[in-house]
Amino acid sequence: MQAHIPGSPDMVESVLQKIERTRQARKHKFYLRDERITLSHGSGGKATHNLIEGVFAPAFSNPMLDIMDDSAIFTVTGEQPRLAFTTDTYVVSPLFFPGGDIGKLAVHGTVNDLAMAGARPLYLSAGFILEEGFPISELRRIVDSMANAAREAGIAIVTGDTKVVQRGKADGLFINTAGVGHIQATWNMGQNFLRAGDKILLNGPVGDHGIAIMMAREALDIETDVESDTAPLHSLTEALLSAVGEGVHCLKDPTRGGVATSLNEMAMSSEVSIGLEEHAIPVHAGVRGACEILGLDPLTIANEGKLLAVVAPEQAEHALDVLHAHPLGREAALIGTVQAEPPGMVFLHTDIGGLRVLDMLVGDPLPRIC
Amino acid sequence: MQAHIPGSPDMVESVLQKIERTRQARKHKFYLRDERITLSHGSGGKATHNLIEGVFAPAFSNPMLDIMDDSAIFTVTGEQPRLAFTTDTYVVSPLFFPGGDIGKLAVHGTVNDLAMAGARPLYLSAGFILEEGFPISELRRIVDSMANAAREAGIAIVTGDTKVVQRGKADGLFINTAGVGHIQATWNMGQNFLRAGDKILLNGPVGDHGIAIMMAREALDIETDVESDTAPLHSLTEALLSAVGEGVHCLKDPTRGGVATSLNEMAMSSEVSIGLEEHAIPVHAGVRGACEILGLDPLTIANEGKLLAVVAPEQAEHALDVLHAHPLGREAALIGTVQAEPPGMVFLHTDIGGLRVLDMLVGDPLPRIC
Repeated sequence: MQAHIPGSPDMVESVLQKIERTRQARKHKFYLRDERITLSHGSGGKATHNLIEGVFAPAFSNPMLDIMDDSAIFTVTGEQPRLAFTTDTYVVSPLFFPGGDIGKLAVHGTVNDLAMAGARPLYLSAGFILEEGFPISELRRIVDSMANAAREAGIAIVTGDTKVVQRGKADGLFINTAGVGHIQATWNMGQNFLRAGDKILLNGPVGDHGIAIMMAREALDIETDVESDTAPLHSLTEALLSAVGEGVHCLKDPTRGGVATSLNEMAMSSEVSIGLEEHAIPVHAGVRGACEILGLDPLTIANEGKLLAVVAPEQAEHALDVLHAHPLGREAALIGTVQAEPPGMVFLHTDIGGLRVLDMLVGDPLPRIC
Repeated sequence: MQAHIPGSPDMVESVLQKIERTRQARKHKFYLRDERITLSHGSGGKATHNLIEGVFAPAFSNPMLDIMDDSAIFTVTGEQPRLAFTTDTYVVSPLFFPGGDIGKLAVHGTVNDLAMAGARPLYLSAGFILEEGFPISELRRIVDSMANAAREAGIAIVTGDTKVVQRGKADGLFINTAGVGHIQATWNMGQNFLRAGDKILLNGPVGDHGIAIMMAREALDIETDVESDTAPLHSLTEALLSAVGEGVHCLKDPTRGGVATSLNEMAMSSEVSIGLEEHAIPVHAGVRGACEILGLDPLTIANEGKLLAVVAPEQAEHALDVLHAHPLGREAALIGTVQAEPPGMVFLHTDIGGLRVLDMLVGDPLPRIC
């Protein structure tokens, strides 16, 4: 256990004590105490997990759901084809923001969930909730943006539904997209398949989407040129999977809750530990500045065009080259390593030489980010 | 053309003139003039069609979507398996009503859309939008109801998503479900496949769901024992399809917009005419009474456990027997006939011997019915 933790014996001891306390606490980690829904239940972080584990998971329990990856994987008539099925609802506010809009996000988000399952996205559904009085000109802009995003991603929106609620009973427009994809990978991968020694790759700087949304709300007098990183990642994942093959053990897009939450989910699901190198994690200057002013951690801020790829150590170099060669991976970096012990924990080796436990997002500093 | 229309020559002439005017008007039938969303855009009737044809259909156009059936049908690797994919969002108010709740509805509605495509429902996704402050005890009741409905229907909820919006930005809880099913029918069927001579079957009385919701809103001082008819119809459709085979040309569940809207959609898609016998259409006394008091037509009221089956004439008797033998088809009836001319029109032969054009729902007497 100690072999993987650098530092003086005292420091190691204190870290280990902290870990033990955290692990004990996590035995009951997803206990739902709340009587009413709060905004943090939608954060994607700890409160969301509490809600899922406290309400949804026990009621709906089945082997496909219990894996708790973003997509369910199934076959219809035996072994082939393996299909991925996923859904996401979009309630982002404002509807239009630097770098995108709710329509683009609703296509990219579900395309990316399929891509992370190793699937080629095929078909999307679109379900709209419209508030009475919503301008049809804005609806047209959003729908056209969805159509463009779908065309660019090479997928079709094949079925849909529209509901309208009275003025004051929604906030303009909400969109749900579900998606079906065809899984290309012949091996199993996902957040249960991390192994000690694996390397963690990230395809570019973190936090752009969340900070762009926050700036678009104009709640703050900070000027930045930060734009949402929303992008469809399936051509990047296809490149990676065909080049590295079974060496790819997990793909995950760190959206709500950010990199910190995604890595914690992986560490818990695979019962491994993850060590991150803070200096290796790319962050745009504008995001870093905004986070410093606002007291936020870029690692808990939502992304929409980022992925974490967990790859076998002997293929990490090659995988990084593949990412660098793709337009959406030019700033890719190797940011960490998987360790066997202590299971379920994520550590950050900080720039100044410290070591801290990196928890998933607690609370919700940025509600309605997607 | 006149051969199919009973009545005196004068009456026939006047009906024909009306038809011609209606058809001319329908040339531009789905022109979207509105600048803002109104509740009737969510009715499932004419305004919904205007919105779909004016905004969604041109933007998303592709062969699978353009068929405009409730499910999209696709294969992944050639001919087999054929899969159905569908989505619906549920915004019903109130969340609990006689005979059901939003959770049960969200499972049955999507199961039924798959069943109408001739598919065995396999997997559902569930996307929740929760309003800050929503009681978790009510969420549990709804989630348990979904889980029960899924178990009873023999399907699994395999993937999901939860978003939270601020207090006042939603109305308690909205649910989207999307579904994937495996198509059993080897032939083509759907609202494009009606043929002259086909018989229209209905599995039971109409209007229960809509009237139950209206009563649950307590807006009126009418006492009835009407309950929602919400039910999963896939075992009924499987029985029908295996007994009648290719004789089944179309299955459709008359939900929003009721029987009148569904039949108009079929008549337009297949470019045929449909003649209905009012006396043959079963309506519970409580529904009939409420409709009379409220000035509503039971044929435009939403149902949740009803289906229209269009079958070849020589198999209509047998199909009706199959429906009668099933618990959800005990009150089934043969309610009409498909005719070649005039295309796109639905007629009602009324109880008192008259003939009237039956249009799809215009406006929305009962918003947020599902």
